[in-house]
Amino acid sequence: MSNIKNDLLLKALRGEEVSRPPVWMMRQAGRYLPDYIKLRQKYDFFTRVETPELACEITLQPVDQVGVDAAIIFSDILVIPQAMGMEVLMEEGKGPLLPSVIKNEADIDNLITDATEERLSYVMNALSLTKQELNGRVPLIGFAGAPWTLLCYMVEGKGSKTFDKAKQFCFTQPALAHKLLQKITDVTIKYLKAQAVAGADLVQVFDSWSGMLSPADFKIFAQPYLVQIADAVSKDVPVILFPKGSWYALEDLSHTSAAGLGLDWSVTPSLARQLTGNRLTLQGNFDPSKLLAPIPQIKKEVKEMIDGFGINRYVANLGHGILPNVPVDHARAFVDAVKEYGS
Amino acid sequence: MSNIKNDLLLKALRGEEVSRPPVWMMRQAGRYLPDYIKLRQKYDFFTRVETPELACEITLQPVDQVGVDAAIIFSDILVIPQAMGMEVLMEEGKGPLLPSVIKNEADIDNLITDATEERLSYVMNALSLTKQELNGRVPLIGFAGAPWTLLCYMVEGKGSKTFDKAKQFCFTQPALAHKLLQKITDVTIKYLKAQAVAGADLVQVFDSWSGMLSPADFKIFAQPYLVQIADAVSKDVPVILFPKGSWYALEDLSHTSAAGLGLDWSVTPSLARQLTGNRLTLQGNFDPSKLLAPIPQIKKEVKEMIDGFGINRYVANLGHGILPNVPVDHARAFVDAVKEYGS
Repeated sequence: MSNIKNDLLLKALRGEEVSRPPVWMMRQAGRYLPDYIKLRQKYDFFTRVETPELACEITLQPVDQVGVDAAIIFSDILVIPQAMGMEVLMEEGKGPLLPSVIKNEADIDNLITDATEERLSYVMNALSLTKQELNGRVPLIGFAGAPWTLLCYMVEGKGSKTFDKAKQFCFTQPALAHKLLQKITDVTIKYLKAQAVAGADLVQVFDSWSGMLSPADFKIFAQPYLVQIADAVSKDVPVILFPKGSWYALEDLSHTSAAGLGLDWSVTPSLARQLTGNRLTLQGNFDPSKLLAPIPQIKKEVKEMIDGFGINRYVANLGHGILPNVPVDHARAFVDAVKEYGS
Repeated sequence: MSNIKNDLLLKALRGEEVSRPPVWMMRQAGRYLPDYIKLRQKYDFFTRVETPELACEITLQPVDQVGVDAAIIFSDILVIPQAMGMEVLMEEGKGPLLPSVIKNEADIDNLITDATEERLSYVMNALSLTKQELNGRVPLIGFAGAPWTLLCYMVEGKGSKTFDKAKQFCFTQPALAHKLLQKITDVTIKYLKAQAVAGADLVQVFDSWSGMLSPADFKIFAQPYLVQIADAVSKDVPVILFPKGSWYALEDLSHTSAAGLGLDWSVTPSLARQLTGNRLTLQGNFDPSKLLAPIPQIKKEVKEMIDGFGINRYVANLGHGILPNVPVDHARAFVDAVKEYGS
C-alpha cells in the first residue's frame, strides 16, 4: 500500500474509483513560473538539471504554487544521448543542438550503453531528494524520451519541422536504425528502472515526434520499442506512454502493459475511449494554447473535457507542454477546475 | 466537355472510371528542381510570383521534367494578405514575415476587400499564359490558403510551432476572429472564381495549419469557412480541400460540395475511405520524407498506397509539399510508379 497522502494519480492508473480525476501538466516545472525564471537567470540549463538541489526546488514549485496532484522531476529527455556519449548543447530559447550526429555504424558502436545509472546519478539523486522533500504529499513522476524521438535528435542534431534527415536514415539504413533504437531502448529501460529505485512512483515515456511517422512506419520504428519499455518497466512502476500525434496507434498501445496513454488535443475523449476500450487510463488532452483564453472559458472547457472522459481511469492534463506565456493564475484555474469538478 | 488531352485528374474528381490514378505533387514547382534554383538565384521570391512569364516557366517545369498529370500555378498563399493591404516579406529559406500583424478591430476594418482581381491580376495573367502554354496537355490547378491558415499568419506574423498568438486572438476575441475569417473568405471566393475565369481547371484550398486546432475548434474557426468556399467555388470548378492534420474532419468535409479531400500520411487509405464513404475523391498521402528512400522502396510503397486507395476516385500525391532535398529522379520514380500501376 502506498504511503502517499494524495494518491489520486496512482489510483487512476490502477483503475480504482476516485472522487475526482488527478491533474498535472506536462512541463509544469518550467518556463511560465516566475520563480523558475529567477533560477534560470542564475544557473544555465544543465546546471539546473544536474544539481539535485536545483532540480528538486524546480520540481516542487508547481506542487506548492499551482496545486497539481503530482510532481514530475525536472530534467530533459536528452540526458540519455548525453549519457551515451553524445555532446548536447542547450541554448536558452533556441532548443537543443547535437554537434556530432549519428551517421554510420561506427557512430552507433561508439555509443556508451553501460553504467547508465552511474552516468545519470544526478537524476537519481534529484529524485531521492525530491521524494524526501515531498514527504508523501503527491506521487513523483520520472520520465524519459521514447527511442524514436531520441533517434530524431541523435541523427538530425536539432529540432526540425520534418525530421527528414532522421527519417532518411531510417528509410535508407533500416538495420542501422533498429540497432540504434535497440541501444536507446536498452539504456532507457535501465534508466527508468533506476528512477523507480530512486523514488519515482510512476514514469512517462515522451514520444514527442511519433506523429511524424505514418501508421505503418510507427509500427516499424516506434511501437516495438515503446512496447519493450512498457513491458520491462511496468514490473517496477506504472508506465504512461505519450505518443504525440499518433492517435492511430491508440488501439494497439491500449493492448500493451502500459498503465496509461497520453493524448494530444486532436482526439476527442469519446473517440479515445472507443479506441482504447477502457483497457487503460487516458491522460490529457487540453490544448495548451487554450490556457491563454479567459479563465471562465478555461473552467468551462475543462469541465467539458472531464464530462467527455469521465472521472475514472482518467488523468487531467494538457495535450502537450504548458507554454511559457501562460499566466500562472490561468494554470491555477486549470488545476482548480479539475479539483472543483462535480462539486 | 474538356479539351484537355490528359484529363485523368478531372475524371478522378468527377468520380469517373480511369485506367490509372492521376498524379501530381504539392510544391512540385519548386525547390527540388535545379532549373527552379537557377531562376531563384536571378529573381527574388515576389518577382518570380508576380512576373507571369517566370511563374509560367516555373509551373511548367515539373510537367516537362517529372511528367506529372497536372500543373499547379506557381504562387503563394500569402498573396491574399498582401492584396488585403498587409506587408509580407519573404526571406529565402527563412519563411514569411508580416511586420504589422492584426491586433484589433481597426486593423481588420482597414483590410482591403475590393478589387481583389485587379490587385492580383498578375496571378490571373500567369494562369492565362500558363493555360496557353500548356496547350491542353494537362489540367491547370489554381489555389489559395484557407481562412484559418491565413489568419494564423496575419495574426502571428510568421511561422510558429504552436501559433499560440493566433489561437489566443481567436479564444479571447472570437467575434473579431470571425469577422477576420469572413473577410478572408469573401476575398478568397472572389480570388478563386477569378482564377477559374483566367484558366484554372480546378482549385485547391490549403489549410496547412488546421491540424493545430482541436476537433471542436476546427468546427468553429476552420470548417464553416472551408464549406463556404467549397460551396461558392464548386459552381465554377472542382474544389479540393486539404485540411492538413485534421483527419478528424474528414467525415464532415466529405458531406460538403468539395470534389476532393487532400490527406496527410497520418491516415491509412482504408480509414480515409471508411470516413468519407466514397462520397468524394481522396488525394494523397505519401510521406514526403519517403522520397528520400531508395527508388525500389518508393516504387513498392507507391504501389501499396494505390492498392489501399483503389484506382478510382483517387489522386496520387504526397501528404505535404515535396522537400527541397529530394533528388529529381526520386520525384520522377514516384510519378512513374503511379503511371506503371497495374501494368
